Amino acid sequence: MSLLEIFISEALGTALLITLGVGVVATNLLTKSKGKDTGWLMINFGWGFAVMIGVYAAWKTGGHLNPAVTLGIAATGAEEFIPGIPVTFATIMTYIGGQMVGAMIGAALAWLAYKDHYDAHENQAEILGTFATGPAIRNYTSNIITEIIGTFVLLAWVIINGSTPTQIGPLAVALVIVSIGASLGGPTGYAINPARDLGPRIMHAILPIKGKGGSDWSYAWVPVVGPIIGGVLAGVLFGANMLNLAGL
Amino acid sequence: MSLLEIFISEALGTALLITLGVGVVATNLLTKSKGKDTGWLMINFGWGFAVMIGVYAAWKTGGHLNPAVTLGIAATGAEEFIPGIPVTFATIMTYIGGQMVGAMIGAALAWLAYKDHYDAHENQAEILGTFATGPAIRNYTSNIITEIIGTFVLLAWVIINGSTPTQIGPLAVALVIVSIGASLGGPTGYAINPARDLGPRIMHAILPIKGKGGSDWSYAWVPVVGPIIGGVLAGVLFGANMLNLAGL
Amino acid sequence: MSLLEIFISEALGTALLITLGVGVVATNLLTKSKGKDTGWLMINFGWGFAVMIGVYAAWKTGGHLNPAVTLGIAATGAEEFIPGIPVTFATIMTYIGGQMVGAMIGAALAWLAYKDHYDAHENQAEILGTFATGPAIRNYTSNIITEIIGTFVLLAWVIINGSTPTQIGPLAVALVIVSIGASLGGPTGYAINPARDLGPRIMHAILPIKGKGGSDWSYAWVPVVGPIIGGVLAGVLFGANMLNLAGL
Amino acid sequence: MSLLEIFISEALGTALLITLGVGVVATNLLTKSKGKDTGWLMINFGWGFAVMIGVYAAWKTGGHLNPAVTLGIAATGAEEFIPGIPVTFATIMTYIGGQMVGAMIGAALAWLAYKDHYDAHENQAEILGTFATGPAIRNYTSNIITEIIGTFVLLAWVIINGSTPTQIGPLAVALVIVSIGASLGGPTGYAINPARDLGPRIMHAILPIKGKGGSDWSYAWVPVVGPIIGGVLAGVLFGANMLNLAGL
Repeated sequence: MSLLEIFISEALGTALLITLGVGVVATNLLTKSKGKDTGWLMINFGWGFAVMIGVYAAWKTGGHLNPAVTLGIAATGAEEFIPGIPVTFATIMTYIGGQMVGAMIGAALAWLAYKDHYDAHENQAEILGTFATGPAIRNYTSNIITEIIGTFVLLAWVIINGSTPTQIGPLAVALVIVSIGASLGGPTGYAINPARDLGPRIMHAILPIKGKGGSDWSYAWVPVVGPIIGGVLAGVLFGANMLNLAGL
Repeated sequence: MSLLEIFISEALGTALLITLGVGVVATNLLTKSKGKDTGWLMINFGWGFAVMIGVYAAWKTGGHLNPAVTLGIAATGAEEFIPGIPVTFATIMTYIGGQMVGAMIGAALAWLAYKDHYDAHENQAEILGTFATGPAIRNYTSNIITEIIGTFVLLAWVIINGSTPTQIGPLAVALVIVSIGASLGGPTGYAINPARDLGPRIMHAILPIKGKGGSDWSYAWVPVVGPIIGGVLAGVLFGANMLNLAGL
Repeated sequence: MSLLEIFISEALGTALLITLGVGVVATNLLTKSKGKDTGWLMINFGWGFAVMIGVYAAWKTGGHLNPAVTLGIAATGAEEFIPGIPVTFATIMTYIGGQMVGAMIGAALAWLAYKDHYDAHENQAEILGTFATGPAIRNYTSNIITEIIGTFVLLAWVIINGSTPTQIGPLAVALVIVSIGASLGGPTGYAINPARDLGPRIMHAILPIKGKGGSDWSYAWVPVVGPIIGGVLAGVLFGANMLNLAGL
Repeated sequence: MSLLEIFISEALGTALLITLGVGVVATNLLTKSKGKDTGWLMINFGWGFAVMIGVYAAWKTGGHLNPAVTLGIAATGAEEFIPGIPVTFATIMTYIGGQMVGAMIGAALAWLAYKDHYDAHENQAEILGTFATGPAIRNYTSNIITEIIGTFVLLAWVIINGSTPTQIGPLAVALVIVSIGASLGGPTGYAINPARDLGPRIMHAILPIKGKGGSDWSYAWVPVVGPIIGGVLAGVLFGANMLNLAGL
């Protein structure tokens, strides 16, 4: 599979993920939305099924949609992401590039779908909240630990799952996302994916959103660095050596 | 498969879809319903599982239940809808005809199941809202864009999914519908299906519903035209040429 | 398979179904329950997954758990319920007998699990509501029509599904139940199963429930007769002749 | 498979289960959590998907994660837990040891993820409630009966399911947990697992949680003894003899 094909696959999948993911927060928060104030469980299911759809769309590249997944798998010492795609610096950068571009496109599409509702909304923090995550209690050390733990759980599942005789594929990963959101999302809104947070945050800065406030760049590094640490940690722990030790 | 068989299959599946789809909105809105005011997430799951049941019932014709699906697949340049059913003007019209008749039957059945609750309900806009979609903020340009994006996501999944080794079939499409509703349904109520909106709207006009108001015909073209544009756009983009480019 | 084995299988499955089904309404209604007032969607999912578990437990007999399913399948003209169990008067009566006994055992177990909460609860109508269904608007004609439509949808799915290449088995039927509850349960609480309603109603009358009121016997025939009509109607319509006509 | 491998597998799976399980209650209860007060259905789904993830992670040992499951299967008279792991005193103790250690690690991780929210929370009973279960109405006899019934249902499903042609594996057990929580969790919070309750309760006593109160040791035996009784009862009833009787 060529680098261009990898790029398109991951960009397409991540665009769908973020269209739906930004969309579900917009549904919950924005003025006059028919789903306004439905609550956290809808957001959890919304992001979960968004990942499912993105994984289907990017299935030829393994449906990473997330630099922490790409780097976490690379950290296991695997030679291929999936049969036919070797783990190299070039493929890693292509995965991440596709994910970032896709996330930006997706955020723009969600904004377009909710354009009039954004225009009618006056709470700047909530407008930003539809695009990017933010901490419930701002404390960078704590926030990064929460993101590390959440992403660690995700990658632990992704890596171990690869060797199980599971048969429900993208649905399982959807429910893993629902689970992490419901269980570990309370403090930081579970970015657990650098592209999911940074891509839409950049679009929040770029797009001509009526009455928007700042993009909270001082927090932007947390949902990038935390997930990468969590993903790589899981990759190292559940990679080749660990697996041999445990016989898993 | 004969045209009559195609017609019956799609009519049956769409009738089940709309009985349950109109029903879930009635459950949520109508006076004295045991599920009154349960909220948007129940509506999302209700429509999703309604689609699942309809797809099972119409599985011999591929379970389109939606003119935007039929036209979107046709726009990919495919030669057959499913093995044994060629893409021709006659089959397309038969699919759509069955979907429209099924949607009308389904709306009548849901009305029958909730008859006393309709009789007791006094909000005319909510009575119409159980049958047909309407915009949260009326702006035809914005509303049609939202419907285009929602249906584009649906068809993107339908078309790409056709080539994946998925194993959960109708459940996956159910969850795609839940996702689109939760994520992109806030502005227009996610018709994403011309038959789903026009069929019940016609029945709203025809049925002797006590104290009903108008059927909002000025909006009726939006949930017909928007989904068709979105579906055909996805069909062209993810059809044969695009798929070859991306190697998907 | 012997009649005794059929009886035990259906009794076991239905006992699990009703323990969990009566239980979820108790969770939602009874004083001091940790899940009090969670709402209709929890009740829908609760009954759906209760059916899933019951179907697993009774899988050797096809997991009917419901006289309307047994009679509906019999009405298709099928010669066997599942391979090895012929459709005869004796097997039909054994299925129904097992379902009734199982439903009564299940209701007693749910009462036992919530004993202190029943003792603390003072609303007699709600106590009965955890055992048996009742109409939101009492009108026997309308109520029976609603039960007919709901059970018709269930049996339509059960009968058609039997010929599809579905792979998720008991999960699919669970979600069908969720769907019928969310979409058609508002007026009568979706008995759609004579044993589900009559068995627990009998136990409500028998058990020494503190401060209980009457068992509303004047309504008891509706959730028996309605589901049987709906199930048999679907059996006749989607049975051998219809299936041949539509080529389904 | 060596005892060390069994220990690691069950500890890993149970650690994931409890990280997510304690986490979902923290999400629902703790001050400033983004999912605060979402309610019982989120808790039900949260624990269900937590079990799913834990079962995937521990799939090589059958994914017990629960002494009541281990003892319940042992009580069936089975010779092996799964092919390659005999039922012996040593393997039983290893399973349970791994589950206890995993549960303690998981509780610590969930506390770490929600550290600032625990620090900001002032309700001591709710802080304990995120770690361990407690009765809605304190009555040890009733509470233990409720835990027996809940765990009996779980083990009934686990044991019978082992002989069905099910294809959705860990998802099915997830939904069984959702079901038991929604239907039988109201009185005691459905421990249905001694390790799930005792492990986090010990951590509640050990961890330096700001402003914590007592760990309610007077109740601690109920969610240990009740689930073991329920599990063993199901093992005996649905074990070899019973299965032969019913031909299941």
